[in-house]
Amino acid sequence: MEVTNKYIVIKHHVEDAPKQSNFELKTKAFALSVESGSDDIIVKNLYISIDPYQINRMKSYSSSQGTINFAVPITPGEAIDGAVIGKVVASGNAKFQKDDLVMGVFTWAEYSLVKEGNIIKKLESSEFPLSYHLGVLGFNGLSAYAGFFELCKPLKGEKVFVSTASGAVGNLVGQYAKLLGCYVVGCAGSQKKVALLKEKLGFDDAFNYKEETDLNSTLKRYFPDGIDVYFDNVGGEMLEAAVANMKAFGRVAICGVISEYTSAGKRASPNMLDVVYKRINIRGFLAADFLNVFEDFSTKTSDYIRTGKLKVIEDLSLGVESIPSAFVGLFKGDNIGKKIISLTEE
Amino acid sequence: MEVTNKYIVIKHHVEDAPKQSNFELKTKAFALSVESGSDDIIVKNLYISIDPYQINRMKSYSSSQGTINFAVPITPGEAIDGAVIGKVVASGNAKFQKDDLVMGVFTWAEYSLVKEGNIIKKLESSEFPLSYHLGVLGFNGLSAYAGFFELCKPLKGEKVFVSTASGAVGNLVGQYAKLLGCYVVGCAGSQKKVALLKEKLGFDDAFNYKEETDLNSTLKRYFPDGIDVYFDNVGGEMLEAAVANMKAFGRVAICGVISEYTSAGKRASPNMLDVVYKRINIRGFLAADFLNVFEDFSTKTSDYIRTGKLKVIEDLSLGVESIPSAFVGLFKGDNIGKKIISLTEE
Repeated sequence: MEVTNKYIVIKHHVEDAPKQSNFELKTKAFALSVESGSDDIIVKNLYISIDPYQINRMKSYSSSQGTINFAVPITPGEAIDGAVIGKVVASGNAKFQKDDLVMGVFTWAEYSLVKEGNIIKKLESSEFPLSYHLGVLGFNGLSAYAGFFELCKPLKGEKVFVSTASGAVGNLVGQYAKLLGCYVVGCAGSQKKVALLKEKLGFDDAFNYKEETDLNSTLKRYFPDGIDVYFDNVGGEMLEAAVANMKAFGRVAICGVISEYTSAGKRASPNMLDVVYKRINIRGFLAADFLNVFEDFSTKTSDYIRTGKLKVIEDLSLGVESIPSAFVGLFKGDNIGKKIISLTEE
Repeated sequence: MEVTNKYIVIKHHVEDAPKQSNFELKTKAFALSVESGSDDIIVKNLYISIDPYQINRMKSYSSSQGTINFAVPITPGEAIDGAVIGKVVASGNAKFQKDDLVMGVFTWAEYSLVKEGNIIKKLESSEFPLSYHLGVLGFNGLSAYAGFFELCKPLKGEKVFVSTASGAVGNLVGQYAKLLGCYVVGCAGSQKKVALLKEKLGFDDAFNYKEETDLNSTLKRYFPDGIDVYFDNVGGEMLEAAVANMKAFGRVAICGVISEYTSAGKRASPNMLDVVYKRINIRGFLAADFLNVFEDFSTKTSDYIRTGKLKVIEDLSLGVESIPSAFVGLFKGDNIGKKIISLTEE
C-alpha cells in the first residue's frame, strides 16, 4: 500500500527569526510496507514535539554541529527530524511489531521511515496522555529536573528566578522549585501567561518582561535580597540583569538562550566582576547528559502528576500543515506550555 | 618616640584606568609607642602587596562592596589598606611582641597602627624570603592552586589556557598545570614575557596577545582540538575567544577580569549557545573561600619551591613613594610576576 506523505522542510538556512516562508510543505509517495528482515520500520506519527533549539540546527553554521546526536545540522530540502511519538505501521525489524507505540527522532511528517537507532523507546504504559512523553515526562521534563536539581542544587527556602516561565521547561522548573519549598518568581511575555503562573502554577510572583523598562530594577524589586538560583531559558539582557541581582554563591543554569538564537547582536554581557565577587557559577547543560537520573525524574514526576501536585500545560496544533506557524510562534511567544503538533484525534 | 609616617591615599574615586595623579603621598606624625593593655599594635611595614583587585575598591560604586572583609570600599583621603608583611615595633596586645613578623591587612605606609583583627598570621619560619608569603605562598598562590585544582578539577593531559600568564597568579597556574602533566599555553603582553613563560617556566607554548588580530583564530591555532580548562585573569575579548574554543565540558575559572576593571564598555559577551551545547562551566571565585585547602596548598607549594620544580617570579620596587607607579603599572602590564613594594633592604 502506498500513501501520499506530507512533510516539512526548510527551503534554505535560517539565520534570523524564522518566518513561515522559510518552510515548505512537501508531499511524496510513500510505501507503507517493508521488506521483512530489513531494519526498516514505518511509523505513523501521532505527536510531534516543537522545540526552539531546532533553529540552531537550521543555521548555515551551527554551534551544535556534531556535538550530540540530535543536534546535527538540518539540510535544506530534506525532511526535518525531531522528537516524535508514533505507532508502528510495518516493521522488518523483529524487535518492533505493528501497533507498537514508539518515541524517537523521526521526521516532521505524517509517516516516517525509521531505523532501530532512531527509536529511543517503546511506550508501554498508557497511564498518561501519550503526548506527555514529549514534554513533561520527556526531554523538557528532564531538562527542568536535571538542570534545577542536579546543576543548581537548590535548598528549601532559596530564591529562584525562571525566565520564559510559561514555556515547556520553565513552567516545570518553577513547579519543581515550589514543590521543594523555594520562593519562585517567573517572567513571561503576556498578562495571560503571568496570570497562569501565579494562579494556576503556584509561582509566588511573576511579571511581564515586556512591560518593564529596566530589568535590573525589576529584579531588584522582586528579589530585594538577591537571587540564589537563576534558571535561564532566554539569555541576553535578562541574563545580565539576573547576574547583577544574584546573591553570593548564586547558581545560573543555562538551559537555552532563545533571545540569542536569532540575533547575534544581542548576546549577554554579564558583569564578570559580579561573577568573581559573588562567586557565581554559570553552567550550560543538555538533558541528554542526565539520563542517569531519568528513572528518578520519571518516577517522581509521574507521581506529582498523578497526585495533582504538578500541572501539565500543553499547547496543541493540528496537522503537519500547522508546523511552520507553530515553530515560528515559539519565537514570538505564541505558545503557552509545551508546543506539540497532534496528528491524531484519538 | 615619634616618626613622620609616609602613606598613600587616593585623592578621589578612580573610575577608569588609574593614573599616578589619582594618588597622593601624605605624611603624618606617628607615635611608635602604645598604651599597654590596649589592643593597639604598631607595625613597621617590610613588604606591601600590589594587586589589581584594589582598583575595584577605589570606584565610587564597587561590586565588591560588603562582600568580603578586604573588599570594603577605599575612602579618598584615607590610607589604603592591603596585604602587608611587617615587624611589630610596639604592642599593647599580649599576643604580639616587639620584633614579631606579622602578615595582615595593613596600610600602604611605612608604619601601620593595627588591631589584632587586622593580623592574619604570625610568620614563624624563615625558610623562604618573607615576601613569598604575599605571593606564591599567600593569596596569589592560593588563588592559583584552589582556582585550578578545586574549581577546574583538571586531569593529566588536559589542555589548559592561562591569560595574563606572567602575572602573579597566572604564572603559578601554568606551573601547577605543567606539574600535573597538562598541556599549557599562556598569553602575555610582550615578547619578553612570552620568552619567560616558554624558557623559564616550562609552558608548552605562549603568545603575545598584542600581536594577534583575531584571538579566536589564535586560540584555534594553539588548541586545534579545543581547550579543557581556561583560567581567566583578563575577561573581555579573551574570555569570548576562549569560550568559542572550549571543548565539551570545558571549565572556566574566573579569577579576575583586569581588562574589565577599568572600562565598563569592554565586557565579555561569551556565546551562550556554546556554553549550552558544550556544557561549559564558568565560575567566579575568591581565594578566601578556600582556606580549607591552605595547609595542603602551602605544604605542596613549599616543597615545589624547595625542590626547584616551581619558579618564583617577583617584581620589586622600593619605598612607599613607588606605590602609585607600581599600581598604575599593573594595568599597563609593567610587572612580571608578583608586584611587591619593599620597604627594607634587609
